Amino acid sequence: MSLGVPDDDAALAADVLAYSDEHGIDSHGIARLKTYFDLLQVGRVNPRPKLKVVREKHAVATIDGDNGLGLVVGPKCMDMAIEKTHQHGSGSIAVCNTNHYGAAGYYPLMAVKKDYIGLSMTNTTKGVAPFNGKEKMLGTNPVALAFPSLNEPEVVIDFASSTVAYGKVEIAQREGEKIPLGWCLDENGLPTTNPEEMINGGALLPLGSSKEGSGHKGYCLAGAVDILSAVLSGANWGPFATPFAINASISGTQVGKGIGHFFVAWDIEGFRDLIAFKKSMDHWIVTMRNAIAREEGAKVLVPGDPEREAYARRIKEGIPIHPIILDQLKTISHACNVPLR
Amino acid sequence: MSLGVPDDDAALAADVLAYSDEHGIDSHGIARLKTYFDLLQVGRVNPRPKLKVVREKHAVATIDGDNGLGLVVGPKCMDMAIEKTHQHGSGSIAVCNTNHYGAAGYYPLMAVKKDYIGLSMTNTTKGVAPFNGKEKMLGTNPVALAFPSLNEPEVVIDFASSTVAYGKVEIAQREGEKIPLGWCLDENGLPTTNPEEMINGGALLPLGSSKEGSGHKGYCLAGAVDILSAVLSGANWGPFATPFAINASISGTQVGKGIGHFFVAWDIEGFRDLIAFKKSMDHWIVTMRNAIAREEGAKVLVPGDPEREAYARRIKEGIPIHPIILDQLKTISHACNVPLR
Repeated sequence: MSLGVPDDDAALAADVLAYSDEHGIDSHGIARLKTYFDLLQVGRVNPRPKLKVVREKHAVATIDGDNGLGLVVGPKCMDMAIEKTHQHGSGSIAVCNTNHYGAAGYYPLMAVKKDYIGLSMTNTTKGVAPFNGKEKMLGTNPVALAFPSLNEPEVVIDFASSTVAYGKVEIAQREGEKIPLGWCLDENGLPTTNPEEMINGGALLPLGSSKEGSGHKGYCLAGAVDILSAVLSGANWGPFATPFAINASISGTQVGKGIGHFFVAWDIEGFRDLIAFKKSMDHWIVTMRNAIAREEGAKVLVPGDPEREAYARRIKEGIPIHPIILDQLKTISHACNVPLR
Repeated sequence: MSLGVPDDDAALAADVLAYSDEHGIDSHGIARLKTYFDLLQVGRVNPRPKLKVVREKHAVATIDGDNGLGLVVGPKCMDMAIEKTHQHGSGSIAVCNTNHYGAAGYYPLMAVKKDYIGLSMTNTTKGVAPFNGKEKMLGTNPVALAFPSLNEPEVVIDFASSTVAYGKVEIAQREGEKIPLGWCLDENGLPTTNPEEMINGGALLPLGSSKEGSGHKGYCLAGAVDILSAVLSGANWGPFATPFAINASISGTQVGKGIGHFFVAWDIEGFRDLIAFKKSMDHWIVTMRNAIAREEGAKVLVPGDPEREAYARRIKEGIPIHPIILDQLKTISHACNVPLR
């Protein structure tokens, strides 16, 4: 709000960030506030975007996010996909000229609240080498899906299409630890266990990592997310994606506007009786949970379980904040003249 | 046709199978004809299905495939998704009571012929352990997507959500070779390099394979395919999926009808000028191809390239048929009284 974001939009952005911190997704919550703050402060993100329909045909549309916060543009565009679903049975919204939208899983959960199935994806700053390549050409391009259930909790899928997110490499570097082979390449395109070697000119590997691990599949997934989010909407795709970092320079070549998102919702009632679907989901969830584990002490989980466990713990015990992040919050507090409680 | 499949439907099924053989996807073409033949012969597949709309809401519907060949039900349902896309900008069709539909990539290419984006997925017989589990609970559940381009060839993505398809393990067994760690578990849930140990009571691993490799992501993907294809349509999901093999018994528990598919198409013109999109796709393709390779002799490919290379070779040199498959074709030829030329 101190930087000109309207109250309602600021509340929306805060809700998206809080979702991450509450659910244990530390990499996508308040730990990123400083970057959003920096980008707003230098005018690289527009605090008062006016969303515009670029094109529309019944169940689908492209929205220009007017270079707003992804945390504001994202929820508004997912709402449009939900509104189209209400009318047409399904709705798909591609978004250009937008920015980092936080945790991908927030958006399909908006659909689940309406008893719809939700899908969200976004392209992101380059960090991942294509299969067989050594250059960063794609982002960690996440995919998220959520499905409602009856008495069991909903199934929530949210994962980056790289083997691991960049944040995991940063953590290993901070702790002075090695990383497993299969996460990263060094600047010469060789597999490395040293996080520094990825950070200094190397690249992340796509899900599957190697030839034997079917790394071409993660590359395909990252490519599909890039095309649906950015090529379809007219945003910057692949290596041209706008970076989410104050000290990263923007690509000299612009092939579109901002980065891109892609949102879809489906009305279950258009396919099947809602209660019958939800009962089947409960059965599906219980069946997976009851699968025999590989070893004693291990458990087969259902997508969304780790985040729910974190939520249950944090809502009681509070949310731990790393000292580095606390310092950033103090800086923001001072700059905005908003006291930290 | 000898088993009562109407001429047009038989031609359609043949076209789906031929697509695989022409494009080097040997596991999904004529090599499977014997299984389709066996299932038709014993009456486990209906040669003359009458497709029925179970539910419909504008852009979405569920179709009951009447236990027909997936090779016939699949193309007809993808056509319905395309027809809905023509009307509504996007169309989504869930299918229950269907069977093995061949190569997943055939279907989104039907959408590309109309200048649409296409998506197809299907659940399949159980063969894959969930992350942390040792029991087979999910199929190799493939996902396929295709995107049109202008002067470059289209991008075609088609991959199983397991690290490798079962066929690769069978090939290693036949050749007496070891398999890489990360492909399979043995019957005790331990990683194995011996293909026999997977085949005799073990399981395939989801894409990502291990904890370090993010095997939970492949599990999430397989789960999403299972839910969209089978839970949403009212088909048998997870471990209850109808097996595609004459000597595999059908699960005693039926939680739906047959297996399930899920098809989506999107009209690019509803999002962006078609020619502008296609030009961007050409640029995307060239950009990925020009990425610096990891090592000399390696090349960064675009999804669809390996199949196109196989096509160019096979259309000139012919399609090699394994002696075992040739014997099966002779058996079928004899049983149907159709001479093999």
